[in-house]
Amino acid sequence: MTPSQTTIFPFSIRGDRLIGQEMFKVMDRAQQLEQRGARVYHLELGNPRMPPPVEIVEATIAAVRNKQLGYTPMAGLPELRDAIAERYTHVAGRPIGRAEIVVSPANLLISQFLDLTCDRGDRVVLFTPAFPSYWAATAHIGLDVVPVPLAPGNGFHLEETHIEQALAARPKAVIINSANNPTGAVYTRAMLELLARRCEEDRVWLLSDETYAELAFGWPFFTLASRESPQLVVISSFSKLFSVPGYRTGYAVAHQAVAEKLALSSSTLISCLPAFTQLGCLAGLRAVDGYVRRVKAQCARVTGLCGTMINRSPVLRCASPESGFYLFVDIAGAGVDDRTFCDRLLEERHTAVTPGRSFGRGCESFVRIATCGQEQDVLEGVRRVVDLAEEMGGTRAKAA
Amino acid sequence: MTPSQTTIFPFSIRGDRLIGQEMFKVMDRAQQLEQRGARVYHLELGNPRMPPPVEIVEATIAAVRNKQLGYTPMAGLPELRDAIAERYTHVAGRPIGRAEIVVSPANLLISQFLDLTCDRGDRVVLFTPAFPSYWAATAHIGLDVVPVPLAPGNGFHLEETHIEQALAARPKAVIINSANNPTGAVYTRAMLELLARRCEEDRVWLLSDETYAELAFGWPFFTLASRESPQLVVISSFSKLFSVPGYRTGYAVAHQAVAEKLALSSSTLISCLPAFTQLGCLAGLRAVDGYVRRVKAQCARVTGLCGTMINRSPVLRCASPESGFYLFVDIAGAGVDDRTFCDRLLEERHTAVTPGRSFGRGCESFVRIATCGQEQDVLEGVRRVVDLAEEMGGTRAKAA
Repeated sequence: MTPSQTTIFPFSIRGDRLIGQEMFKVMDRAQQLEQRGARVYHLELGNPRMPPPVEIVEATIAAVRNKQLGYTPMAGLPELRDAIAERYTHVAGRPIGRAEIVVSPANLLISQFLDLTCDRGDRVVLFTPAFPSYWAATAHIGLDVVPVPLAPGNGFHLEETHIEQALAARPKAVIINSANNPTGAVYTRAMLELLARRCEEDRVWLLSDETYAELAFGWPFFTLASRESPQLVVISSFSKLFSVPGYRTGYAVAHQAVAEKLALSSSTLISCLPAFTQLGCLAGLRAVDGYVRRVKAQCARVTGLCGTMINRSPVLRCASPESGFYLFVDIAGAGVDDRTFCDRLLEERHTAVTPGRSFGRGCESFVRIATCGQEQDVLEGVRRVVDLAEEMGGTRAKAA
Repeated sequence: MTPSQTTIFPFSIRGDRLIGQEMFKVMDRAQQLEQRGARVYHLELGNPRMPPPVEIVEATIAAVRNKQLGYTPMAGLPELRDAIAERYTHVAGRPIGRAEIVVSPANLLISQFLDLTCDRGDRVVLFTPAFPSYWAATAHIGLDVVPVPLAPGNGFHLEETHIEQALAARPKAVIINSANNPTGAVYTRAMLELLARRCEEDRVWLLSDETYAELAFGWPFFTLASRESPQLVVISSFSKLFSVPGYRTGYAVAHQAVAEKLALSSSTLISCLPAFTQLGCLAGLRAVDGYVRRVKAQCARVTGLCGTMINRSPVLRCASPESGFYLFVDIAGAGVDDRTFCDRLLEERHTAVTPGRSFGRGCESFVRIATCGQEQDVLEGVRRVVDLAEEMGGTRAKAA
């Protein structure tokens, strides 16, 4: 928009603060290239290309065929809430009931949580690098983000000093995300429990975004829902678990009083979710354990391969992958910043990745690579990343 | 929630103001009755039960089958935006392009519009009775609603005095909804254009919610998108047009600068919508004219029948239906208020309707009836409404 348009359009303060998610803007630019006939390698979005469980596809189709096309309850279908509650009762090791579960898109739940718990100007702690939606939601609401930077030197892991630094800021809310997007780091159970306990002591709201928690390679699935804590909200998504990001279906596990608020928020904003996507996810839950085992094995193999390719290059560096399908790659050796690198990578090499700055200040020498696409495309995309970085860093010539 | 819980849960100001949509709460209560084995007649929600166009169902199934399960652009699929733009170019009689179209759930677009245009405390005009989502969204954002009451005596139509009353309040935004939910009134083209022109003159944002505009019985489809007006946003939904409310897919037609903001808002809140629902709606658009003709004929017949049943009763009164499938029924003759009537209707007659007060102050002697369910169920439900009202009003005994 030109400055003159700003005066024509008297947007609200919140409207002026909207930034959206950078990776969707990258995808839009990549798709414009494709419309001009280019073949583009998509490593910008965590858009899994594994076939989803056949149970999901068939149950969704059956529901559409059976004309389950009407409105559903604002908190989600009772049978899906029951199935999630049953599963969390099992993994959390404490009884969790339907009243503590709300079905809503996980990305929306980030905004819903912050909107319910924080007023404009309130402080929120993000451990950085942090998922762009946290930045977009906090900016939109007008929250004062206190970034607590994690250290690349130890693989961006959460440590006790970070927790104390977070609480010392006297925030209204803290967001934690393990397994982490974009770093892939899986925090220890002890550290997550320490954070939850400290938030309880200080009566600070805690959002535990566990979207990737089940895709941790070396650990069993651990959820903070194991704690019965009134100001703790756990969110997750079927998007990554079942390779169905387009279903836009996630859920929260929260104290009943908070769950009721989240449902009212959904009623206000989106009314409800489709029945057929929820029934698909319900069918998927019956097959979840076997499917997740296969996804984890695939992620471990492909992400591992990509990590090796990157760390073999003299100009690139990333932490050893511990979960899921993101690599947060230090491109300092290429001698340019993230935006320049991403722009040239897309224009010249037709490969889309997300600039590090979308994850927070101090990340301008990083890019995020998503390794969950078609395996051959992902490997070719990573090859192009390495190639461009080495060309820019002048090492390919040296090596030759 | 008990008062003690309020102190445990320090919700935000916006969180405290959430009210949600009353008709979803009614549906939840009705479904609890059903879980106890009752047969309930659902007239509380505009949940159309006409079979949708077969093209939609088949295209949706094909897209799921073809694994179109990934993320989509934040503003919607380009091919769907193009098809909507082409249709509006035709009906609006002026060129409208993809850049002016954003695909998003229509209910969310209400919040998105208000959020983009108004700051907390700003004045917004609602012509009352008004759709509960407007109340829920304005309450949530903390806007100062100026209600401009329309008169039951003239079928709740919009007149020039209402428009001048609206603009005299010096609002930041006005919401207009024709064909109207809940009254069914269709405002004249002249009156809608006058409102739009007056908003332009005073530089006031205008949301034209045209969700039911294509279901006006006696008029051709008229859209305010015919005006090229920077502060005008037209929204509509495929939910009612195609009898697929569960698809949660609607759209906005707006100036490019506003459309870009709406897309950023979607990116922030929900990331994007499913591909398969959008592809379904795209296929539906190819069959839209014939299908809408059949839906209108069905609505005119069933809503007409229901209107006749109601107006034959000495204790009930509603305006002659002009569109869609809502009747806003004056139950004053039953001698109780809307909430008492609705509670007894649900408990004793297993029939769910929505209390008038959800549509604004001054509507406590009304209930809204949705006539878009299975025809026999709707007629039986209306019979039960009439029956209870006459019993309460003491006229059944008199008539016997």
